[in-house]
Amino acid sequence: MDEFKVTPWEVSGKVDYNKLIERFGTKKIDQALLERMRRLTKDLHPYLTRQVFFSHRDLDVVLKKYEDGEKFFLYTGRGPSGGMHMGHLVPLMFTKWLQEKFKVDLYIQITDDEKFLMRDLSLEETHRLAYDNIADIIALGFDPKRTHIFVNTEYAKTLYKIAIKVARNITTSTNKAVFGFTDSSNMGISFFPAMQMAPCFLPKELGKGDMQCLVPAAIDQDDYWRPARDVAAKMGCPKPAQIHSKFFPSLLGMDAKMSSSDPRSSIFLTDTPEEVKKKVMRYAFSGGRDTVEEQRKLGADLEKDISYQWMRFFEEDDRKLKRIGDDYSSGKMLTGEIKTILADRLNAFLKSHQKARGKAKGRTEKFMLRD
Amino acid sequence: MDEFKVTPWEVSGKVDYNKLIERFGTKKIDQALLERMRRLTKDLHPYLTRQVFFSHRDLDVVLKKYEDGEKFFLYTGRGPSGGMHMGHLVPLMFTKWLQEKFKVDLYIQITDDEKFLMRDLSLEETHRLAYDNIADIIALGFDPKRTHIFVNTEYAKTLYKIAIKVARNITTSTNKAVFGFTDSSNMGISFFPAMQMAPCFLPKELGKGDMQCLVPAAIDQDDYWRPARDVAAKMGCPKPAQIHSKFFPSLLGMDAKMSSSDPRSSIFLTDTPEEVKKKVMRYAFSGGRDTVEEQRKLGADLEKDISYQWMRFFEEDDRKLKRIGDDYSSGKMLTGEIKTILADRLNAFLKSHQKARGKAKGRTEKFMLRD
Repeated sequence: MDEFKVTPWEVSGKVDYNKLIERFGTKKIDQALLERMRRLTKDLHPYLTRQVFFSHRDLDVVLKKYEDGEKFFLYTGRGPSGGMHMGHLVPLMFTKWLQEKFKVDLYIQITDDEKFLMRDLSLEETHRLAYDNIADIIALGFDPKRTHIFVNTEYAKTLYKIAIKVARNITTSTNKAVFGFTDSSNMGISFFPAMQMAPCFLPKELGKGDMQCLVPAAIDQDDYWRPARDVAAKMGCPKPAQIHSKFFPSLLGMDAKMSSSDPRSSIFLTDTPEEVKKKVMRYAFSGGRDTVEEQRKLGADLEKDISYQWMRFFEEDDRKLKRIGDDYSSGKMLTGEIKTILADRLNAFLKSHQKARGKAKGRTEKFMLRD
Repeated sequence: MDEFKVTPWEVSGKVDYNKLIERFGTKKIDQALLERMRRLTKDLHPYLTRQVFFSHRDLDVVLKKYEDGEKFFLYTGRGPSGGMHMGHLVPLMFTKWLQEKFKVDLYIQITDDEKFLMRDLSLEETHRLAYDNIADIIALGFDPKRTHIFVNTEYAKTLYKIAIKVARNITTSTNKAVFGFTDSSNMGISFFPAMQMAPCFLPKELGKGDMQCLVPAAIDQDDYWRPARDVAAKMGCPKPAQIHSKFFPSLLGMDAKMSSSDPRSSIFLTDTPEEVKKKVMRYAFSGGRDTVEEQRKLGADLEKDISYQWMRFFEEDDRKLKRIGDDYSSGKMLTGEIKTILADRLNAFLKSHQKARGKAKGRTEKFMLRD
């Protein structure tokens, strides 16, 4: 029996990422690949050196082609089921870095259809949430010249044409096995994976040639890309490549489930400084000791401490992060102190993000693809 | 055991249309309903008096509303898997009559996606066939002000949005049971029924209110509309009504299967006068006797005679048809003669159709809906 489970619709147990690489048949991003990337990008994003992005499929192929002068494109997405939280930014911030370093096109799919088909939301609500989320995405500073965002129901003419080409090559039984559908699933959500795979082949449909696709996403999304890789040859395109991240932990603990319905588990991008401070202070799971005395003597368990783990995602400065880790694990720093550091870091980020978000709303049209 | 079978994907055995009404739970178009219709339309199409259109669902509801001043709309379609033949015109000619009499909007769906998903055809081919078929449809003389034609891949943005609303309310198991899909079906064709049901609710999406839909089609298509009727309330629309025709017979006999792959079985709209004459003379199944002597003495069996049966579809003049029937069944007329009459009738039709078809190509844009 496996002690953990990772599928696009369920993550449970304590995830062993090395085992996951074996189980999924992906490849580790090793030192050689990192050095190869550094030669092209000059520096490495902390998510690479810290192994947040740790696994891949065909990233080496993508880099080889790039070295030979052939561009790739990036594709990522967002399901608009509610407001966005800090964890949602992880793949997006990394994608932005990739885009800047490689100067490539990026397509961002907003799956309002998926959320309509899976949740008790109207199309009006998913549409409103889509544009709410798009403001957060644009606020990260993507280049409007190279970044193309589309909401599925607004771009369905283009997507449906690609999706039926994909779908023709995938049987219902494969679809059920890969995505966990049953005969009780509605007949719309069973088609949705074809809509999610379609952008892997979008530039070709747009007359931009058969560029290879690179998808940065959490590793639980990997299932989606395996059938996409299987049909790629029939679509006249290279197999879409992936670069996989580990999971962003819940505020409530490394193994806790981050749930949008439990506001204690995440920091939303619209939270006020007071809410952020309160959530971090109250709920951030602590790897520190029960008493100040013990903490001074034994130090904190960084692996379990959410404040430290979140700093690994949001503190770019390696030396600063190391100092915090050293001080906290040695007992020099107390839980209250690291929590304050995290809350301040998040609030500094959110202050500028919320300002950028306000401005982003007026700039949406520069990014949108519509039929 | 049933001695005949009628589903959207298979018709076999000798169809008993009265039993079919029972089996499907539809209603017979009886004399009272015909008279009610005649009050509104002044005259009745021969397809009604000859019981070619013989069954319905909610036609009485549609007429009641019409009497009360509330309009309905017509919806029919065509799957572009090849060139069109005479049989394909039957529901279209009747639909045109309904449109003229009731002065209502008509939507015609061209399912290039369906044919792409089910056949070994490229999207380029199904697209070319779509416009080839559209020329034949327009050539029938539809009113461009009230007739709206769309090719699914060109109108998918509008259709997909309706289709997912439909699809959310239909489980995979219902979908399988109704349409005969299995786990070997590709995941695109399993979604297609939602695209075919979507136009039942199209005027609402276009802001034209919740008019009731009336679908004229052969009765084997009835399966499609049962789930559409089931979801109508959730779509905020009345249940789509249907008016069902009997099957147009193959040239090769009443129980023979009309097959596009067997050119002997049908007369194509592009056939030359010589081809038409040759096909009718050689292949039209005869209900006449084996020898001239026997025919003179016993007369022909009109029920089995394809020339007579086809005349029921293409000779509008009741008295002329009756005279032919009387003469042929009494033995006054020989098989060669009725075949000549049919060939001449078809050629007269095709001569003006082919001329109209040439002109139609330049008028396509007046009819098209596109995203």
